Amino acid sequence: MLFFEDLQVGQTRRFGRYEVTREEVLDFARKYDPQAFHLDDEAAANTHFGRLAASGWHSCAMTMAMMVEDMAITPRAMLGAFGVDELRWLKPVFPGDVLSCESEFFDKRLSKSKPGVGIVTLKVTTFNQHGEPVLSMRPITMVRTRES
Amino acid sequence: MLFFEDLQVGQTRRFGRYEVTREEVLDFARKYDPQAFHLDDEAAANTHFGRLAASGWHSCAMTMAMMVEDMAITPRAMLGAFGVDELRWLKPVFPGDVLSCESEFFDKRLSKSKPGVGIVTLKVTTFNQHGEPVLSMRPITMVRTRES
Repeated sequence: MLFFEDLQVGQTRRFGRYEVTREEVLDFARKYDPQAFHLDDEAAANTHFGRLAASGWHSCAMTMAMMVEDMAITPRAMLGAFGVDELRWLKPVFPGDVLSCESEFFDKRLSKSKPGVGIVTLKVTTFNQHGEPVLSMRPITMVRTRES
Repeated sequence: MLFFEDLQVGQTRRFGRYEVTREEVLDFARKYDPQAFHLDDEAAANTHFGRLAASGWHSCAMTMAMMVEDMAITPRAMLGAFGVDELRWLKPVFPGDVLSCESEFFDKRLSKSKPGVGIVTLKVTTFNQHGEPVLSMRPITMVRTRES
């Protein structure tokens, strides 16, 4: 189990593999983001996406799935995240894409209000199979200190 | 149809109603955020959540669903969002909660690189049935100008 003290700023990690299926893109969009370019091939062809593209929130959700899977491989004393800064959708994510992630420990400090808790900001980038970044964000997480 | 020129900074709007069901919380968590406090009552009881809580990304997705529904009521010449700043999960969202939204036009400027496009930053807050803010964020959207 890795604690706050074990996390080194600048440390990076590659992980994850997520195959984006058409069925899942449509299913997510129907429930949460029913805009034409996420639901309909013809409508999408007439937009800047060029073809059917996943909801940006779906890309976040798929990235989270990879992060949770990675946390099971390398457990951290993580108490959750309270927010995300600078979330950017850099390129469309299409059905058939295969996603993967890179994360970096970007910043760490002890919480002023919560004893035994450290605030760790990550820089997470999601790539497609061409190595192009499709999403980047800075989740702000809480990690327990060893003594806690 | 509202264009860039029609959107007034400071203008606010209340909209949306989303009933959070236990089945949907579990379904989203299984697919995208399978951490114990989103999946299991007993495990959640032992965390700062206190009981089974929705994934933060699920809260974002439900907020998006309300925003898309509202865009159908008040159509805007929206080209999509390229990112979100200052996403904060302020309080847990529980099964049984009923969510609603408030959005404000927070900032607007013409794009320097894309003629006919304006950049409009929103401030979106999601509330539970007790009027408590559970989520806030600043989506950065692109809106066409009238002349385009």
